Amino acid sequence: MGRWEPNARGRLEQAAMELYSESGYEQTTVAGIARRAGLTERTFFRYYADKREVLFAGAASLQELFVTAVAGAPAAAAPIDAVAAALDAAASLFQERREYSRQRQRIIAANPELQERELIKLASLSAALAGALRERGVAEPAASLAAQAGTAVFKIAFERWIDGPGEPDMMRLTRESLEELKAVTAGR
Amino acid sequence: MGRWEPNARGRLEQAAMELYSESGYEQTTVAGIARRAGLTERTFFRYYADKREVLFAGAASLQELFVTAVAGAPAAAAPIDAVAAALDAAASLFQERREYSRQRQRIIAANPELQERELIKLASLSAALAGALRERGVAEPAASLAAQAGTAVFKIAFERWIDGPGEPDMMRLTRESLEELKAVTAGR
Repeated sequence: MGRWEPNARGRLEQAAMELYSESGYEQTTVAGIARRAGLTERTFFRYYADKREVLFAGAASLQELFVTAVAGAPAAAAPIDAVAAALDAAASLFQERREYSRQRQRIIAANPELQERELIKLASLSAALAGALRERGVAEPAASLAAQAGTAVFKIAFERWIDGPGEPDMMRLTRESLEELKAVTAGR
Repeated sequence: MGRWEPNARGRLEQAAMELYSESGYEQTTVAGIARRAGLTERTFFRYYADKREVLFAGAASLQELFVTAVAGAPAAAAPIDAVAAALDAAASLFQERREYSRQRQRIIAANPELQERELIKLASLSAALAGALRERGVAEPAASLAAQAGTAVFKIAFERWIDGPGEPDMMRLTRESLEELKAVTAGR
């Protein structure tokens, strides 16, 4: 058992993000990340399975947040309103981490393997959301359709938030995108 | 230049699908596929870049079909109606190939690498659909939202068609799923 290092996870994440941005994801090694963070490789592997995991460790929390928000929506809420509650919860989480999110997005955009991984994570998120809706008694295919619609809204609002000028508000963009989806499906 | 072999592409596809189903995708080799088809490896590589390509060669035609249908929809059609036209066109294409589609789905479901590839193809399809809508003058984010909604409807209708009992009608399922999406986003 190694000695306890204060905020080792945060230091490793920051070191990894710096190196991915400076030297590229492919060129970065776990040894390099640990060195930059002033920690050992052994400590790295106590927190992350590999260098890719540093970028995707947040996906599990996001999924849990979605599922919890859907489960906690009022019993009388329509499926799309339960999804809207999940999107609001996600927007609050992201709002504080715009710089990190932008940096992460640039790293992922530069690497096809990471883009694939991101697609897989989004598909898992959508499947988890559909599962949470079924738990509320929503039948199929409505549960999967609402979940996929919600994931699409999230993805598009996220891109607008990342790319937008100034300091855009993620929750406002999410709600706008959901309204836009409603208008589109209504044939407007 | 090898001699001309009648319907070499079709024979290679059939041989590949048989072997993927019998022995598994991983265990199948290009040499084995060529042998089963009574053709040479050289002939195989004239039609397909690798064994994975046999399963995904149809994605380009599907994408073209989507884009052509969106472009050909009446000028006054709402974005979602242009997407509906694309879904109808795709349903007609698939309807004739249910046995093939079921077999292909089973092969893909058994292999994570193929599932990832399928997700990537669906994401490309959605991006192409959004591009075709922008060509019609649909603004963002409406174009991307309509495209992702359409892709979700297609995916869900496809799964119901594949899994359904009897001989389900793909076009009917696609239209039903689109109506269901409209009901869900309308808060019903």
